[in-house]
Amino acid sequence: MSERPLSSQLAEFAATVHYEDLPPAVIHSAKERILDTLGICLAAAAEGLADGVIALAERWGGREEAGIVGRAGRFPAPVAAQVNGTLAHSLDFDDTHLPSILHPSASIVPATLAAAEASGASGREAIAAAAVGTELCVRIGLGGMVAGSNLWFDRGWHATSICGTLGAAVSAAKLLGLDAAGIAHALGIAASFASGIIEANRTGGSVKRLHCGWAAHSGLNAAFLAQQGYTGPPTVFEGRFGLYTAFLEGKFDAQAVLADLGERWELPAIFYKPYPANHYTHAGIDAALAIRRRYGPLDVDQIERIELGVAGPTLRTIGQPREEKIQPQSGYHAQFSGPFTVATALLGGGGLGVSFEDFTDEKARDPRLLALAAKVELYADPEAEAIYPYQFPAILRVFLKDGRVLEERVLANRGGPQNPLSPEELRTKFLLNATRLIPAERAHQLADAILALDQQGTPGDLVARARP
Amino acid sequence: MSERPLSSQLAEFAATVHYEDLPPAVIHSAKERILDTLGICLAAAAEGLADGVIALAERWGGREEAGIVGRAGRFPAPVAAQVNGTLAHSLDFDDTHLPSILHPSASIVPATLAAAEASGASGREAIAAAAVGTELCVRIGLGGMVAGSNLWFDRGWHATSICGTLGAAVSAAKLLGLDAAGIAHALGIAASFASGIIEANRTGGSVKRLHCGWAAHSGLNAAFLAQQGYTGPPTVFEGRFGLYTAFLEGKFDAQAVLADLGERWELPAIFYKPYPANHYTHAGIDAALAIRRRYGPLDVDQIERIELGVAGPTLRTIGQPREEKIQPQSGYHAQFSGPFTVATALLGGGGLGVSFEDFTDEKARDPRLLALAAKVELYADPEAEAIYPYQFPAILRVFLKDGRVLEERVLANRGGPQNPLSPEELRTKFLLNATRLIPAERAHQLADAILALDQQGTPGDLVARARP
Repeated sequence: MSERPLSSQLAEFAATVHYEDLPPAVIHSAKERILDTLGICLAAAAEGLADGVIALAERWGGREEAGIVGRAGRFPAPVAAQVNGTLAHSLDFDDTHLPSILHPSASIVPATLAAAEASGASGREAIAAAAVGTELCVRIGLGGMVAGSNLWFDRGWHATSICGTLGAAVSAAKLLGLDAAGIAHALGIAASFASGIIEANRTGGSVKRLHCGWAAHSGLNAAFLAQQGYTGPPTVFEGRFGLYTAFLEGKFDAQAVLADLGERWELPAIFYKPYPANHYTHAGIDAALAIRRRYGPLDVDQIERIELGVAGPTLRTIGQPREEKIQPQSGYHAQFSGPFTVATALLGGGGLGVSFEDFTDEKARDPRLLALAAKVELYADPEAEAIYPYQFPAILRVFLKDGRVLEERVLANRGGPQNPLSPEELRTKFLLNATRLIPAERAHQLADAILALDQQGTPGDLVARARP
Repeated sequence: MSERPLSSQLAEFAATVHYEDLPPAVIHSAKERILDTLGICLAAAAEGLADGVIALAERWGGREEAGIVGRAGRFPAPVAAQVNGTLAHSLDFDDTHLPSILHPSASIVPATLAAAEASGASGREAIAAAAVGTELCVRIGLGGMVAGSNLWFDRGWHATSICGTLGAAVSAAKLLGLDAAGIAHALGIAASFASGIIEANRTGGSVKRLHCGWAAHSGLNAAFLAQQGYTGPPTVFEGRFGLYTAFLEGKFDAQAVLADLGERWELPAIFYKPYPANHYTHAGIDAALAIRRRYGPLDVDQIERIELGVAGPTLRTIGQPREEKIQPQSGYHAQFSGPFTVATALLGGGGLGVSFEDFTDEKARDPRLLALAAKVELYADPEAEAIYPYQFPAILRVFLKDGRVLEERVLANRGGPQNPLSPEELRTKFLLNATRLIPAERAHQLADAILALDQQGTPGDLVARARP
């Protein structure tokens, strides 16, 4: 580690890495992030989850420079990014970086596509910008992992939107053609725009659905303001009044931010979500699906009880309060329930194992599902906790009335680098999402266009195709 | 104090207070805040200090619903608020609330004017919205004063833009006609948009000039999104993952936020700045001007040395590093120098005592000023510190070669409630600022229109008059 400020080291990396420098796995992953994100945006658009943001975009109008998913109309780039970022995060289906526990693509991909369309950048430039912005987003997040603790999460910060603002600023600044000094200023400005608290996860409110759209909006504004000549402080990360001091009391790990930058990429290791549910529920679903595959459909009446062992810190999200988790108020709440998701997977869900159709309000009232969910007991499992938050593991044991115990241990989440979704599975996820709004044939064409973005077409073409 | 969440108590106050309920002093003060802010905006526009923000506003265009100061053109309300908020804070001439040490009007007035113009609100509605938004802005800031410490400042937060976002959201939500529940949701959303760190004050960069514009922009967006039906968490302030936990480790004083809300108003006690310089330098200037008034112009050669006693926490801003403060790099840096500002006032400055003309780059190189500045020694004075941050006091002693010591103690800053600017002085400040861009006759007419806003005209008229 040199003694140069963090922001200038990060900015130099961002400015000097071009498409041609990217390892093939990084190029492929960047395109798959666009694929996954646009699929989620289409599914969210079908639900109308950004209608309020779109109504404001339409109210305010302005320069027609960037498109939005699911609807006609082009808008100023920060506004288009806000709409698409809202869509991308609204379903809790977007990807997750571990161990920083933040969701990068929902901010970075919309920011990249809007900035690329506004600046007339090529597909290859957009891929490089998305790769670099995502990489810095998650590394800045890793800076807040100290002694195994996620300081962002402990304090109530939504690292997703805070680091998302910074990553979006980097992607946009690169696409606007800023040099290393300009990208450093974009980071310095973005640090004063970065925001997001997660009290809504505790006591309600839909504001979290706005976070990634706002991060993309703020990051784009920071980049455009840097282009206009506004500047940030060089010590914006490590300074006495800098980002890590203000947000995390000065506790941060510079080594985690910088280590092997440009040699080792975090990007391809970011976990995809195969199921539209809180990520902490996923390994339990994986385990239940494995038991179902191995033993065939179970006779529910023969099940005595079920144990689901998870990492302790995830219990409050998916296991508590128990009465709420075994009888979720709505389909949305069911997505955050360990008992409900395990019951669903044991009985057989749709899509890649569990799908949107499994989280309707009707399903959340289904007596058969609820009876099975009530048999599921969660506990903090030491083996699971030992590898958290590098995985979100689960140990599932189904105790049958005949005395048999069916056990499945999932120590590597499906969708992560040790248990990846195949390209076909990721395409299936995309198609399931996209076809909620556009016909299958058009969805296939869009997937092909995204995966060929470095060969033909423009970033703007992709967004233009992503609507009925 | 009831056990209802803070946000619902604040929102209920905001929703239920109307112009007719405001004490006359509050009405008068709200109008004078608009007067002061628009004057500063005009002076800043003359310097082109928001040209980069305006260039982006013009690039993006859109619905012509709110004007900007100093330039033709109307823009979407959040964009107009961003431009005017940037102008209002760029000169470091905007008002300051003590002891929270935050600058409310630079965010609240632009947000109020833009929201009022966009919603077609009356002058009286705008006055009430500005009063209520400012009051909540500074009270939320006061919540971060614990055991005499300003926790915002200690951590490197810019309370100005964080609390400014929340106050701007309240003003705008009220003007959009939201009820108490809607205003609470606007606060709940704004808390996830609130941002701003002040590392730029230490190591440079112009980003701080953007903070109040961004706060106004973010606050307006939060209000419009609440109008669209997005919601925030009820416990957004005091919750485990709420604003005070995230920003201030959960340390806050709910009593300071709520005490006598609606009965006692902080608004009229907010300190105006008579001089365009860092507020910590002001009492030193007051003292030097008093000595000059009492003894007449001094013979510089007869001055042996000068002592300036201030509160310890202000030393790093206006006294350190000494070599920088006695030879400021530029006119801008001279505004943050105790020695330079005292020397300027002793030799006689312009305007209300010291003015813009005293902070040119040429003045910052003037050998006579620099020689006198070099004689000024700062020290931490216990008497000054005892009343900081309720005042920013100064004790000035001029030691003459003939053995005499001229002493002046300023324990109540000029511009604050114990030593107020008269209406005539505040108008003089406005005219000095406004006439940097518009003719004196038009400036007088604009002042008259602002002070008659509750009798005639609209908020939009004021902004439309504030340009050449």
